[in-house]
Amino acid sequence: MSSTATTQVTEILNYFGGTWHKSAATEFVNVSNPATAEVIARTPISSKADVDAAVQSAAEAFPAWRRTPAGERIQYLFKLKVLLEDHIDELARIITLENGKTFAEAKAELRRGIENVEVACGIPVMMQGYNLEDITPGVDELLIRQPLGVVAAIAPFNFPAMIPFWFLPYAIACGNTFVLKPSERVPLSMRRAYELLEQTGLPKGVINIVNGGKEAVDALCDHPTVRAISFVGSTPVAKHVYQRSAAAGKRMQCQGGAKNHVIVLPDADMDLARQIIADSAFGCAGQRCLAVSVAVTIGEAQNGAKPVVDGRSTKIAGHENGNFIKPTILDGVPASSSLANTEIFGPVLSLIHANTIDEAIDFIRKSPYGNQASLFTTSGAAARKFRYEAPAGNIGINIGVAAPMAYFPFNGWKESFFGILHAQGKDAVEFFTESKIVIERWSRQETRKF
Amino acid sequence: MSSTATTQVTEILNYFGGTWHKSAATEFVNVSNPATAEVIARTPISSKADVDAAVQSAAEAFPAWRRTPAGERIQYLFKLKVLLEDHIDELARIITLENGKTFAEAKAELRRGIENVEVACGIPVMMQGYNLEDITPGVDELLIRQPLGVVAAIAPFNFPAMIPFWFLPYAIACGNTFVLKPSERVPLSMRRAYELLEQTGLPKGVINIVNGGKEAVDALCDHPTVRAISFVGSTPVAKHVYQRSAAAGKRMQCQGGAKNHVIVLPDADMDLARQIIADSAFGCAGQRCLAVSVAVTIGEAQNGAKPVVDGRSTKIAGHENGNFIKPTILDGVPASSSLANTEIFGPVLSLIHANTIDEAIDFIRKSPYGNQASLFTTSGAAARKFRYEAPAGNIGINIGVAAPMAYFPFNGWKESFFGILHAQGKDAVEFFTESKIVIERWSRQETRKF
Amino acid sequence: MSSTATTQVTEILNYFGGTWHKSAATEFVNVSNPATAEVIARTPISSKADVDAAVQSAAEAFPAWRRTPAGERIQYLFKLKVLLEDHIDELARIITLENGKTFAEAKAELRRGIENVEVACGIPVMMQGYNLEDITPGVDELLIRQPLGVVAAIAPFNFPAMIPFWFLPYAIACGNTFVLKPSERVPLSMRRAYELLEQTGLPKGVINIVNGGKEAVDALCDHPTVRAISFVGSTPVAKHVYQRSAAAGKRMQCQGGAKNHVIVLPDADMDLARQIIADSAFGCAGQRCLAVSVAVTIGEAQNGAKPVVDGRSTKIAGHENGNFIKPTILDGVPASSSLANTEIFGPVLSLIHANTIDEAIDFIRKSPYGNQASLFTTSGAAARKFRYEAPAGNIGINIGVAAPMAYFPFNGWKESFFGILHAQGKDAVEFFTESKIVIERWSRQETRKF
Amino acid sequence: MSSTATTQVTEILNYFGGTWHKSAATEFVNVSNPATAEVIARTPISSKADVDAAVQSAAEAFPAWRRTPAGERIQYLFKLKVLLEDHIDELARIITLENGKTFAEAKAELRRGIENVEVACGIPVMMQGYNLEDITPGVDELLIRQPLGVVAAIAPFNFPAMIPFWFLPYAIACGNTFVLKPSERVPLSMRRAYELLEQTGLPKGVINIVNGGKEAVDALCDHPTVRAISFVGSTPVAKHVYQRSAAAGKRMQCQGGAKNHVIVLPDADMDLARQIIADSAFGCAGQRCLAVSVAVTIGEAQNGAKPVVDGRSTKIAGHENGNFIKPTILDGVPASSSLANTEIFGPVLSLIHANTIDEAIDFIRKSPYGNQASLFTTSGAAARKFRYEAPAGNIGINIGVAAPMAYFPFNGWKESFFGILHAQGKDAVEFFTESKIVIERWSRQETRKF
Repeated sequence: MSSTATTQVTEILNYFGGTWHKSAATEFVNVSNPATAEVIARTPISSKADVDAAVQSAAEAFPAWRRTPAGERIQYLFKLKVLLEDHIDELARIITLENGKTFAEAKAELRRGIENVEVACGIPVMMQGYNLEDITPGVDELLIRQPLGVVAAIAPFNFPAMIPFWFLPYAIACGNTFVLKPSERVPLSMRRAYELLEQTGLPKGVINIVNGGKEAVDALCDHPTVRAISFVGSTPVAKHVYQRSAAAGKRMQCQGGAKNHVIVLPDADMDLARQIIADSAFGCAGQRCLAVSVAVTIGEAQNGAKPVVDGRSTKIAGHENGNFIKPTILDGVPASSSLANTEIFGPVLSLIHANTIDEAIDFIRKSPYGNQASLFTTSGAAARKFRYEAPAGNIGINIGVAAPMAYFPFNGWKESFFGILHAQGKDAVEFFTESKIVIERWSRQETRKF
Repeated sequence: MSSTATTQVTEILNYFGGTWHKSAATEFVNVSNPATAEVIARTPISSKADVDAAVQSAAEAFPAWRRTPAGERIQYLFKLKVLLEDHIDELARIITLENGKTFAEAKAELRRGIENVEVACGIPVMMQGYNLEDITPGVDELLIRQPLGVVAAIAPFNFPAMIPFWFLPYAIACGNTFVLKPSERVPLSMRRAYELLEQTGLPKGVINIVNGGKEAVDALCDHPTVRAISFVGSTPVAKHVYQRSAAAGKRMQCQGGAKNHVIVLPDADMDLARQIIADSAFGCAGQRCLAVSVAVTIGEAQNGAKPVVDGRSTKIAGHENGNFIKPTILDGVPASSSLANTEIFGPVLSLIHANTIDEAIDFIRKSPYGNQASLFTTSGAAARKFRYEAPAGNIGINIGVAAPMAYFPFNGWKESFFGILHAQGKDAVEFFTESKIVIERWSRQETRKF
Repeated sequence: MSSTATTQVTEILNYFGGTWHKSAATEFVNVSNPATAEVIARTPISSKADVDAAVQSAAEAFPAWRRTPAGERIQYLFKLKVLLEDHIDELARIITLENGKTFAEAKAELRRGIENVEVACGIPVMMQGYNLEDITPGVDELLIRQPLGVVAAIAPFNFPAMIPFWFLPYAIACGNTFVLKPSERVPLSMRRAYELLEQTGLPKGVINIVNGGKEAVDALCDHPTVRAISFVGSTPVAKHVYQRSAAAGKRMQCQGGAKNHVIVLPDADMDLARQIIADSAFGCAGQRCLAVSVAVTIGEAQNGAKPVVDGRSTKIAGHENGNFIKPTILDGVPASSSLANTEIFGPVLSLIHANTIDEAIDFIRKSPYGNQASLFTTSGAAARKFRYEAPAGNIGINIGVAAPMAYFPFNGWKESFFGILHAQGKDAVEFFTESKIVIERWSRQETRKF
Repeated sequence: MSSTATTQVTEILNYFGGTWHKSAATEFVNVSNPATAEVIARTPISSKADVDAAVQSAAEAFPAWRRTPAGERIQYLFKLKVLLEDHIDELARIITLENGKTFAEAKAELRRGIENVEVACGIPVMMQGYNLEDITPGVDELLIRQPLGVVAAIAPFNFPAMIPFWFLPYAIACGNTFVLKPSERVPLSMRRAYELLEQTGLPKGVINIVNGGKEAVDALCDHPTVRAISFVGSTPVAKHVYQRSAAAGKRMQCQGGAKNHVIVLPDADMDLARQIIADSAFGCAGQRCLAVSVAVTIGEAQNGAKPVVDGRSTKIAGHENGNFIKPTILDGVPASSSLANTEIFGPVLSLIHANTIDEAIDFIRKSPYGNQASLFTTSGAAARKFRYEAPAGNIGINIGVAAPMAYFPFNGWKESFFGILHAQGKDAVEFFTESKIVIERWSRQETRKF
C-alpha cells in the first residue's frame, strides 16, 4: 500500500512558454487529501528565478496578444466555457480530492468560475472607452482602454478553481498576459484547468503558472514587469501584499478574511432562516469568506432561529485519518470576545443576542472585517435600514451566502479588502486595463486657443 | 518699508469645524511673492494633533452630510460655481501673487477648476449604481454607491487652486467630508476659495484645511479615519504617499512628475507646431506636469520646428529680486542623458533628433515617466500609430498641453501616476465612493436553491 | 371694470430669430384665470406659416450652435439655473394665475423644472460616445453622438413650466435648436421663462416658440426640417402625434393620459397611506398624470386607509366665478366600470375593493394605461412582487406621486406612453442625439481582410 | 428531370409552439436558386390567422421565459454559438443556394450573425438598470429593465441569416419571445437555423416563424400583442411598417435602403482604394445595404482610383439560366441624375467627379439616404472633417463596407433608418426591454415631504 501511495504522488510543475517545467526548487510542500491525510502531490516552493521565467514568458507573449482583437481573444473563452462544462465532474472530483469540500460544493464552485468565463466573453462591450467631439471647436477627446501587460494573481486554498477564474478570464480577454500562483496546498485543480486552457489553442505565454509560497509571492509583488497584483487570502497577507506591491508602484486588489454576521429579526421566516444559516455556516466546512460565523438574534428571534446541530461525528468510518470536524454552535458568546471577532474558518457558529437592530448593526460596525452582513426579516423597512447602514461590501437580505454574481463585483469592505476595484464584472475590466486619453486637433483654422 | 512688509504678512490658519483656527505649530514656512521675493504670508507646519482636529471635524460632519441627498449636496456646488465666476479675477491675482504665473495663466487655471465644479454637479447621474432582477428566480441583486467617509487631498504648489478642485467637488458631492493640505508654499488661493465655499452655506466640517509639510502628510496617510488619499506632487513623494497609505490599508491616487516628449514629423504644420510647443514648454514657467520638455524631431522636421528663443531677460526692471528665468533651449541633447530624462520643472526645452517615429516612440518608452506624449503631424496613419503605441496617459495630436477636460480623467502612466482611478470625471466618482452589493430574496416559494 | 380688464389682456406672441413676433393668426384662444374666470391673455392659433418661420429660425441657428462645444453650451444652462432660482416666486405666481394650482404646487413644479436644467448641465459627460480599438488589427471603431438639428416639443396645460423643461435643456445642451408649442391655455409661464432664457445670452434662434393649436401641432409633425417630436397631453392626441410624426419619418416620444391605481395592503401604515393618497389624488386639483385616481384596498385595509373628504366648498368667497371643485371620493366603484377606467383629471378618487394583491394587480393589468402604480405596505415581499409584476412605468412603494427625479426617465407604459426613450435624464440625451459609427483604417500593412 | 425537380421542392412550414406547422395559406411564392433558376422551395403566404397562431405561441411562452433568469437564458445562446460554428459550412451552402451569394460571402455573413449571438451572451451585464439612494432622505429610486413580451422581426432577402440574428439573440436573451417573418424569397437559411435553435433545448414558443408577404407584415404591425417591430428592407416598406406600427402604438426600428458614396481624395493610397471599393461595390452582387454605389473622385484622384472591370461574363457555363450580371461601372454620371440617387441593389458603380471635399460631402447631404459614407485619404484633417460633417450613420475611413461590429449599433440615418434605437449591441438591449422606475419609501420618520 505505501509504495503505491508513493508512486501516486504527483509532481507539480510550473507552466510557462506554453509547456510544463520542473521548478528549480529544492523545497516542497506536500498536498494531502483532507479526507484521508494521504499525500497526493508535492508542490515546489519556487524561487524568484522561477517567477522570473514565468513573467518573462508572459512578457514575450504580450505584444502579439495585445494586438489580437478583443473579438478574437474571446473565442478562446467561448471554447474554454465548453471545455469546462464538459469536464465539470472531473474538475469537481479534483477539487474534492485536494480541498476536501463535497462534490456538490465543488461543482457549485466551478459554476461560479464558469460564470466569470461567460462574463469575460463580453469584453468587446465591456472594454469600450468613451469620447466627445469638440471639447473646443475642432478638437476631440477620447478615452481608450488598453491592456496593462503582465498581471499576476495569487490564490487561496479554499476555492482552488473559482478564485483564479475571478481574474484569469478578464485579464486575458482584456489583452494582458497572466501569471497565476495557486495555493501550494491545492495546485491540482488549476493544473487540470490549464490543460483545458491549452486545448483552446491559446498562444504560448498568455497564461502561466508559478507554484510556491512566500518567496514567489514577494517576487511577484516586487517584479518590475508585473503591472498588477490580484490577491485573495488572509487579511495579514493581504495587507502585506498590498503594501509591498504599492512599494513597487503597482495597482493591486487584495481580498482578506472575514467574520460575517447574520441578524435575525423576530419577524423573519424562522424555518427559512434556520436552514439557510446552517447551510451558510457549515457548508464548505465553513471555509467560505462569505460564511456566516456570528448569528445575532434580536428580541424573541432566538428560539426560532437557533440552528440545529446535525451531530456528524468527527470520525468517519474508513476515513479515520481525515481532517473532519463537526459543526459547532457556541451560544451566549460575548459580543466583545475574541471568539466573536476573529476569523475561525471552520464550521463554527457563534450566537450573540442584541436588543435592537441598531445594537446588532453596531456589532458589525465594530468588527474589523466587512465582507458580508445578512439580515433575515420580512420587513421592507428593516431591510432598507440594514442595506443603508450595515458596513459590509456584500449585503444579504434573507440570503445566507451573499456571493455576487460574476456580472457584479465581489465586494469587501474594511479589513476584508484592500484596494478600490474588486474581482469580477466591470471592476475587473477596469482593473485589467489602463485608460489613455487622446486629444486630437486636425485643423488650424477651426481651433481657438486651447 | 520693512515694518510695513512685516504687518502685511498673512498668518495662515487651519480650517475645521466651520471656522479658522490657529495651528499649535511652532515651525513656519514663509510664503514669498516669486516676482519680488517679498514674504507675504507664513504657513504653520501643523502637527499630527492639528491633523487630528481637522479629521475629527470631518468625521463629525459625515453622518449628516452622507444622509443629505445628492441632489441637495450639489446645490452648494451650483452656488460655488457662481461665486468662483464672480471672483475669478480676485482669485487669479492671488494665484499670481503666491505662485508667480501670469494673470492669464492663473485665470486659465481657475477655469479648469471651475470645470470640475461643473462636472461634479452631475453627481446624481454619475453616482448611480446598477442592478439586475432575478439573478435566480425571485432574487435580485443591486450595486449601490455610498460615500467613503473622511477623505484627504494633498496638493502641490504649481496649480494652487486647480488641483484641489480636481478632488474637492467630487469628494463632497459624493457625500464624503474632506480635508485639504495645500502646498505650504501657496496657501492663499485655497484660503480664499474656502471663504467662498463658506458663503455657499456648506455645513460645518464638510470641508477642512490643515496646513503643513511632511508631518501633516504622514499623519493623513496614517490616520485610521481617513479613507482615501489623493496626492499630486513629485514622483518620490508620490511613491512615499502611495506606499505609506497602502500600509494603512487606504485607497489612494498619487500623481507624480513628468518629462513630456513631443515628436514633430516632417509632414507637420511647422508654424503651428513651433507656436504650440513654445507655449507648452515655456507657459506657466514650464511648471506644468503636462509641459513639453523634450522635442524630438524626425528627419527634416528640425529646421522647421525649432522654437524661437524669445529673449526675455532674467532681470525684470522693478522686480530685481524676483525669481525669473528665461526660456532655455538646449539643442543636441543625447537621448540617454540625464538632462533628457530628469524632470526640470522650468522653462527648459531639450531638443533630440531621431530617424524614425519608432525610434522616437522608443525614447518615450524608455522614459520613467508617462504623463503626456504629443505628436505633430498631418498624417492619420502616424497619429493612429502614436496613440496606439505611445506609453503615456495623455496623448496629444497637434496639441501642446493635452490636459483632459474635467469630464475625462486626468491620466498619467508609469512613474507619473500610482494608483488606478485618476482625478476628475467618472474616475473621481468611483474613487470617492465605495460600492455595496445587495442581494435580496423576499419570497420562499419562488426561489430555487442559491 | 371691463375697460380695465380689456387693457390687461396680454397678447401672446411667437418667438423666433431671437425676438417676439406677432402671429399672422386670425383666430385666438382666451386664457383665463381659473380662480376668477377673468380673461388674462389671448393666444394666437398660429398657422403652418408661423410654424415655418419658427422652424426656419431654428434651422438657421443650428450649424453654429452645433459647433459650439458642449462645455460652452451648458454655460447658458448654469446661468438659467440661477435666473430661475431668482425668479421662482414670480414664475410660480404666473403658473398659479393661468393654471390655477396653488402657489406651493407651482413652486414644486418649478423645482422639478430646474432639476432638469441641472441634469442637462452634465451633458459633457452624458453625451459621450464609446469606442474600441482593433476591431480587426489596425482598425478602430467609435460611436460619436451628434445633435439632430431642429427638434420640437408640444406641451400640455397642467404643468405649464415643468414639462417644457423636460425637453428644452437637454435638446439645446445636446446642440439642437428647439421649437416649443406651449398649451394655448397656459402660454404665460414659458413666455416669462423665455425672457429669462434671453438674459442668458443664448444665440438667436436656438430656442423658439410658436403658439397655437392643432394646426401648429400637425405642421410640426409634418415639417421635414423637424427631426424629433416630444409630446405630452391626452392619449388620443398622443396617438395622433405619434402616428403622424411616424408618417413623416421622425423620431418621437409621446406621453399620454393615465388612470393610476394605489393598492393598500392591510399591513400598511394607515396614517401615512391616508395622508399621502389624499395628497396624491387631490393635489394639483388631481391634474397630475401621476395622480392616484383609483384606490384598491385589500381585505381589511379599507377602514384604515379611507381618505377623509376635506369638505372644501366649491364656492370660494371672492372667487365666485372660479372653476373650483371639491375633492370627491366615490366608494364601491365596480372595477369594470368606466369610472374606474377613464381618466377624469380632477380631484376624484374611486375606491375599489379586492380580495388579494393578485386581484388588485390584475385591475392594473386590465387598465389601458400604465403611468403609475403604487403600493402601501410594510412587507418587503409584497413590494418585490408588486414592482416585479405591476405593469406601469413608475412604481411607488409607500409613495403617492412616484415622479422620477430628473436624473431618471419619466416613464410611462401602455397607453400612457408611445415611443421608447422617455423625457428626462439619459433617455433625453439619447433621444436628442443621433449616433454615428466611424470605422477607421490607417495602415495597409497592419490590416487583415475586413 | 422535371419530376425529380418537383420532388425536391421543399415545402416551407411555419414554426410555433415548438413544432413545424403547415400554413393554411392557399397562395405560395417559389424560391429559386439564382444560379440555375430552379425552384427549390415554395413559401406559403401566411394569413393573419397564421400570424395569430405564432403570436399566441409566443405569448404563452412569455411568462415562464421572462421569469427564467438572464444567466440561464444565455445558456441557450452559448449552445447556439457552438452549433452555428459546427454547422457554418452547411448553413453557408444553404445561403448560397437560395440567395446566390458566394460561399465565402455566405460564411462571412454567418460570422456576423454569430457575433451577435456572442454579444447577446453578455445580457446579464447589458440589461442592468441603475439606481440612486436617498433621492430625498430615506427614499430610493431605481430603474429596472424588464422584457417587453412578444416582439417580431421582418427580414429581407439579401442576408437570409445575418439580419434575423441582429434581433433574435438580444430579443430572447432579454426575456422576450420572438416571431420571425423571413423573406419569402429566402426561407431556407433560418429554417435550418431554427432546427439548431431547437437543439439548444429552448422552451417551446420562445422562438417562432411565420412565413409570408404583405399580409403577414401588416398583421404583425397591427397585432395588439406584438410589442415591437424590427424591420429591414426597402425604404418604402420601411416607411410603411414604421407608420403602421406607430398607428398600433408600438415601438419600432425600421432599416431601409441606401445609396452609399465613397469619396477618394488625391492623397489616398490608390491601390488600396481601388481594391477595397471594387470589393464593396461588387461583392455580394452589390446587394449589401452598405455597398458603395457612387464613387466621388476629387481633383486628380480619378485616374488612380478608377476600379478595374473584372470582365466576368453574364453567361456562366453550366448555369445558363442563372441570374448573373457582370459588374458595371458608369463613368461621368451627373450628380443630380436619378442614377446617382436611386438604389440599384446590384453590382453597379457610378463615378462622379467633384472639385473639393466640400462639394463631395454636399452630394451626400443631398442624398435621401444616409446609411454609409466612406472616405479614402491619408490625411487626418480630411478624415476628421468627414466624420464630423458627413450625414450618414456609418462612416468609413479607408473602409469599403463600414459594417459596425455586433457590439456597436448598426446605424443608418435619413431615409435609411426610421426609429431611434438600432439593431445590435446596446441599442438592441434598450429596444428589447422597457424600463420601470421604482421609488421606495420605507420609513416614515426619515422622510421629508416628497
